[in-house]
Amino acid sequence: MNDTKKPGTPKDSHYAKLRRTFRDQKSGGAPAFRPKRPLPPGDSAPDGLVRLYGLHTVRAALDNPLRKVKRMLVTRNAAERLEIADINALPFATELVEPRDIDKITGTDAVHQGVLIEAEPLKPKVLSALGDSPLILVLDQVTDPHNVGAIMRSAVAFGAGALITTSRHSPHETGVLAKSASGALEHIDLIEVRNLADALEQLHEAGFQTIGLDSDGPAELEKTFSEKKVALVLGAEGKGLRQKTRETVTSLARLDMPGAIRSLNVSNAAAVSLYAARLWLR
Amino acid sequence: MNDTKKPGTPKDSHYAKLRRTFRDQKSGGAPAFRPKRPLPPGDSAPDGLVRLYGLHTVRAALDNPLRKVKRMLVTRNAAERLEIADINALPFATELVEPRDIDKITGTDAVHQGVLIEAEPLKPKVLSALGDSPLILVLDQVTDPHNVGAIMRSAVAFGAGALITTSRHSPHETGVLAKSASGALEHIDLIEVRNLADALEQLHEAGFQTIGLDSDGPAELEKTFSEKKVALVLGAEGKGLRQKTRETVTSLARLDMPGAIRSLNVSNAAAVSLYAARLWLR
Repeated sequence: MNDTKKPGTPKDSHYAKLRRTFRDQKSGGAPAFRPKRPLPPGDSAPDGLVRLYGLHTVRAALDNPLRKVKRMLVTRNAAERLEIADINALPFATELVEPRDIDKITGTDAVHQGVLIEAEPLKPKVLSALGDSPLILVLDQVTDPHNVGAIMRSAVAFGAGALITTSRHSPHETGVLAKSASGALEHIDLIEVRNLADALEQLHEAGFQTIGLDSDGPAELEKTFSEKKVALVLGAEGKGLRQKTRETVTSLARLDMPGAIRSLNVSNAAAVSLYAARLWLR
Repeated sequence: MNDTKKPGTPKDSHYAKLRRTFRDQKSGGAPAFRPKRPLPPGDSAPDGLVRLYGLHTVRAALDNPLRKVKRMLVTRNAAERLEIADINALPFATELVEPRDIDKITGTDAVHQGVLIEAEPLKPKVLSALGDSPLILVLDQVTDPHNVGAIMRSAVAFGAGALITTSRHSPHETGVLAKSASGALEHIDLIEVRNLADALEQLHEAGFQTIGLDSDGPAELEKTFSEKKVALVLGAEGKGLRQKTRETVTSLARLDMPGAIRSLNVSNAAAVSLYAARLWLR
């Protein structure tokens, strides 16, 4: 079985592969499909830049005038799907590559779909920049990039006006986060605050009911809404909301779950809460 | 910078690490924290077995009388957190290991929390085994194990009686799925059917309203419920429901999303739909 673990060498020609496949099939035992050896991620992005990949994510980044792109690696196929007629006409360095070239950078676990860009991260805003949306989402030290990305996507889908996080213990903009956000990163105001309790008080002054989601909350979320401006506050999985956060929010509320498992994945909890808030705000 | 990429050798003693850290700090440049080189997953599980890891996942598997465990690798710390007093008293082979030993099997990306078991997969049930729950979830070729795992967790949390999938193009029980399910795998009936349209018809005969989630659905989900037995049908991200599925369900419905992104991650869509169904079924 040692043979099947040999990494596919880039020099392998198409015909060499066909020959080997035929030989293997003839010899009976070895599988015709030879899985590629997984590659771990390569070196990290150049200083101060983030790598974004995936068709939706890159499309949204290219469409965002605030996003400064420095470099793009793209396959012929992905360029077509992105509807880029001439990659040399783009206002940044662009290279036509093979999928495997991007694998070497992102690792094979990343679904890059043949395109990767290096870009400057977006600047987080400050709380005073909060617009007039009646619905915002606040994360109390949620850091997992998959979850935060999916949360951003839901926040944009349900029309939340901003995502507020603390400047410490918060997710950094990464490829994983951006891919999970599926373009949402370019569509929502990310506001970073130093002190979450102070920020909650400022939201109260601006007329927001702040509701902390907590499995031990005294009432169900849908019975807790009272104001027509709502800020939903979610804590990290396992840890939940910090004590100071609990003490500062207007209300604590739970999502009612009748089953054997009493908690949702944090991105699912965020989606359900946003949906419930939208029903209330109608 | 080449030095920082050297894999941490298992033989490195604690003191060797401290010395090196001190030397690096003194020399000014190199970081005190030396990230470990990521490991890809190792060989796959022995034939016919699945590998499950993570504290919640393994605890739930150990508590499930239907789950046949063959072997366990566990760190001293994880054994303590699982409240296993004597690992030699367990009715299967158990080895006390270091975290890195499990890394080598799962890859460093897997959050195994110091415990891994090899076990027989649970047997999927047939549709006739469906219990009397008024809420079930149907997946039309959703295969991503992260998503299916998170969906199982939400299904159990919201008290869905079963998860129905097709036998082809369906997720297999894997470590990633089980970890995302966070124990839910052991708490829900997984029913596999050959033909989804036939299965939907059988659900209709059993009094279920089958509702296909579709971003182009004619009405909002919360206005679509009409029966007190509901089967929610979700398709894969990007592809959505297959044509035959669309034609067979009682109703198509959409989740209303006012934002710039018009679709949710499929696990978030499932959680929101389950929540909405629970509000209706109250």
